[in-house]
Amino acid sequence: MSTGARLGGLGSGWGSVPAAALPPPRPAVVAAKAALSAVVDGRVSFSDFDRLSYARDLWPLALLWIRQGRVPPPPDAIVWPSTEPQVSKLIALARQQKLALIPYGAGSGVCGGTWAIHGGVTLDLKRFDTIGPVDPVRRCVDVGAGVMGETLERKLNARGWTLGHFPSSIYTSSVGGWIAARSAGQLSSRYGKIEDMVLSLRAVLGTGELLVTPERPFSGPDLAPLLIGSEGTLCAFTGARLRVCPLPEGRVFHGFEFGSVAAGLEAIRLVFREGLRPAVVRLYDPFDTAFVGKGKPTGHRAPATPPAKKGALSRGFLPMMLRQVTKQTLGRPKAMNQLQRVFKKSRLILMFEGDAKRAEAEDRAATIICRKLGADDLGEAPGRAWLAKRYDVSYKMSGLIDAGTFADTMEIAAPWEHVLEVYERVHAAASPYAFVLCHFSHAYADGCSLYFSFVGSGGDEAEIEARYHQLWRAALAAAVSAGGNVSHHHGVGLLKAGAMQDALGEARHALAGLKSLFDPDGVMNPGKLGLS
Amino acid sequence: MSTGARLGGLGSGWGSVPAAALPPPRPAVVAAKAALSAVVDGRVSFSDFDRLSYARDLWPLALLWIRQGRVPPPPDAIVWPSTEPQVSKLIALARQQKLALIPYGAGSGVCGGTWAIHGGVTLDLKRFDTIGPVDPVRRCVDVGAGVMGETLERKLNARGWTLGHFPSSIYTSSVGGWIAARSAGQLSSRYGKIEDMVLSLRAVLGTGELLVTPERPFSGPDLAPLLIGSEGTLCAFTGARLRVCPLPEGRVFHGFEFGSVAAGLEAIRLVFREGLRPAVVRLYDPFDTAFVGKGKPTGHRAPATPPAKKGALSRGFLPMMLRQVTKQTLGRPKAMNQLQRVFKKSRLILMFEGDAKRAEAEDRAATIICRKLGADDLGEAPGRAWLAKRYDVSYKMSGLIDAGTFADTMEIAAPWEHVLEVYERVHAAASPYAFVLCHFSHAYADGCSLYFSFVGSGGDEAEIEARYHQLWRAALAAAVSAGGNVSHHHGVGLLKAGAMQDALGEARHALAGLKSLFDPDGVMNPGKLGLS
Repeated sequence: MSTGARLGGLGSGWGSVPAAALPPPRPAVVAAKAALSAVVDGRVSFSDFDRLSYARDLWPLALLWIRQGRVPPPPDAIVWPSTEPQVSKLIALARQQKLALIPYGAGSGVCGGTWAIHGGVTLDLKRFDTIGPVDPVRRCVDVGAGVMGETLERKLNARGWTLGHFPSSIYTSSVGGWIAARSAGQLSSRYGKIEDMVLSLRAVLGTGELLVTPERPFSGPDLAPLLIGSEGTLCAFTGARLRVCPLPEGRVFHGFEFGSVAAGLEAIRLVFREGLRPAVVRLYDPFDTAFVGKGKPTGHRAPATPPAKKGALSRGFLPMMLRQVTKQTLGRPKAMNQLQRVFKKSRLILMFEGDAKRAEAEDRAATIICRKLGADDLGEAPGRAWLAKRYDVSYKMSGLIDAGTFADTMEIAAPWEHVLEVYERVHAAASPYAFVLCHFSHAYADGCSLYFSFVGSGGDEAEIEARYHQLWRAALAAAVSAGGNVSHHHGVGLLKAGAMQDALGEARHALAGLKSLFDPDGVMNPGKLGLS
Repeated sequence: MSTGARLGGLGSGWGSVPAAALPPPRPAVVAAKAALSAVVDGRVSFSDFDRLSYARDLWPLALLWIRQGRVPPPPDAIVWPSTEPQVSKLIALARQQKLALIPYGAGSGVCGGTWAIHGGVTLDLKRFDTIGPVDPVRRCVDVGAGVMGETLERKLNARGWTLGHFPSSIYTSSVGGWIAARSAGQLSSRYGKIEDMVLSLRAVLGTGELLVTPERPFSGPDLAPLLIGSEGTLCAFTGARLRVCPLPEGRVFHGFEFGSVAAGLEAIRLVFREGLRPAVVRLYDPFDTAFVGKGKPTGHRAPATPPAKKGALSRGFLPMMLRQVTKQTLGRPKAMNQLQRVFKKSRLILMFEGDAKRAEAEDRAATIICRKLGADDLGEAPGRAWLAKRYDVSYKMSGLIDAGTFADTMEIAAPWEHVLEVYERVHAAASPYAFVLCHFSHAYADGCSLYFSFVGSGGDEAEIEARYHQLWRAALAAAVSAGGNVSHHHGVGLLKAGAMQDALGEARHALAGLKSLFDPDGVMNPGKLGLS
């Protein structure tokens, strides 16, 4: 695998810095301290503690660095505005003083989207934390961009509503972050991705102007989709009007086991072609099937609080994998990956929800499709087991890194005709570098997301990091060459910036033009999405 | 009604010209004749016959003028490119010579979107007429922007597929025109509006660059929605990849009659809240119910050819209305409109299609909702009668105008909580100027479109035209003040340009910025959408 995808982060002139001895804030930012402070009523920090906290996100590369006592480049300062005029003034100041501004939600990104690679000021938007009343006729709610996901969902639930948006980061991500990164939740096949829930947006552009997008349906060009997924490079989000749904009356879980990945994918495709809209669709490849906990369900509903970190490594699929696949065997991942030939069974979890009778009818129709394709019926247990642990994965990565391995995930969108090829080619390309698992989820009538998990090991820290980059280059290049898109719902940030620019082709000029229009001085999150 | 909505067309310094003595082509365009001709291999025309043909669209204001022997301002020339490089070269030439370029599909717009108000060159795109093979796995087809709607649908049908897009203009509109004007078809509640069918777009921007938008789902900002609905002001469309669906296995028609408009609207809202997705939803207000032909259905399927123009005025609801509502009574529309108090019944037509059993099940669920709201069951006849005449209305406007009256339609999108208020306020505002009918269609979970029909009369031609403008100003202002959007699927053009700009508020600056970015010399369809 001599050629690979262009990764935005590599060779771009930035790297880690020692956590114990951060470089001092840049003089230009220090010089603006009084002006920044005046805008936000003193809510500005230059402390190393805060700079350290805001330096990193959940990109495993940062975790590898932290193990070595290093962190990504920190911002020079952090500000906490609470009104749109304050954000406008901060942008005006940044343009005047040539400071980079990094809009910041909750720091749960996994692609370096909030890394301060050019220093500057992190714009934490968490004080935009209002949740308005639910409009029951229109079924929408106005929320601030800084509202945390789980808080919003819990408060909506208490009033009988749901947003229907359940990213595994729900405890550690914000509404603004979801919109900035084009987020998808676990129930997206029924409720849509975040862009489907946004009725209108409030954003302060890099010009300093407030833009409130018109509500759909409407006439003329649609401005909202231009800002959704812009990852802080065009604007800072301050709020949104979001569609809500009543809590579902009923839920039906159903697990199936197929003789191959191909048969399972065909089942999903046919389920969607039939017009069925399961809320959850998750097909695990043979390794993921073998390593996913097959135990009894531990509970019916999602936990109301985040899974306890203590003991999180003592149960579940990743620790089981860790026990079974020792560091030594991870050093020979190709051999391990060939065991895939032994494991053949591929497990599918479906969950239908909404009107109870209709959910049951949809499940019956899906069951007929699965049986025709030779699936074994596993009943409701696998689905309930998944639900009980649905957010756990987000809390396990650190433990894996601590265990002397590296791990990461890669989500790739692909149309149905390319899904199997993307799967096979990424598997082959990543195989020399890491142990590879994959599940298929977020299905549409047109295609689905492939969610790869990679676990690898190496010699010393330099070797591990080199292998990590080799893995990403090879896997992303394979995904794109097989007809996949560079991402599905993790965003682009630094990690996939080069690959996204390559995939855009000539369309990258239009994106660069939009950048120059909405952020004429290039102060908004410079370097992300491959936009300087 | 002293204040009204700002209409883009009025007071903008342009008006009609005599059809028999067109002003000669502008010298700047004549001077470019050889250069234009060289780009398109001689396919350029300066003839008065062609200029006359391309001067008008189906905006009833043009029909009023034509009755007086006048036409909207004609283009100076027409060109027929057939390749993307030709379009790029034409744009380069236009930028160099400061010529306006007007992208043109099939001329069926009703808002003046293709009127050559600054002269210039009409860019007829009908030679982009390819229809690629259907990809049966991905379910999509690549088509040229100039393909006519009915041609595409017929050719897809022959292969077992449908686009699911049935605007009443289907015989007289093109794929590029649909995308440019954000078109919706009669079955949009099931298949979506045109923007939901577009997987990717090919467009030559006003910079001369070809933009091929990435296929969804993907990462980063979404460029396609920015061009959809841009009505020639940012780019010329050359082609699109469109989603297709298999022809439906079954269809179920069901008509209901409600005691009031409010009850019928509540039924539609609940049908969508239940998750049911009828392909057709049409609720007629009492006048529209009374005047819609209640006769037996004349056929099962839509005709394969356009309805014969001969005799089109001798049957159907408009001629019946014409007979019943004479020119004299139309001179006193307010009194006529008050008869609405006598007529109360509001008729709903539903049609479900797709898998036969599922369509029946959906119909049963919808029937329960309608009966609970006190509806009388009319069986399948009203739906079949509608289907048989579904495209006829597009061919009747000229006849009405010839009959010495004026008529127009206004479609307004509104969220559910404002639909009834938009209906009542537009009805009251338009009532002094015209006889008012309305139906509600294109329903979503969030709202629907209100489709008003106005028929009026006046004294001499000047009086009729003055009343026509008074009507529009009053009706549009009432719609917007009641919470409606200025349009749903007819586009903006000149007619609604001022009102759209007002509705955008501060967001108009962002739109103006996009205009300057993608059309830096302002050559693309200047003056439309309120963009100079």
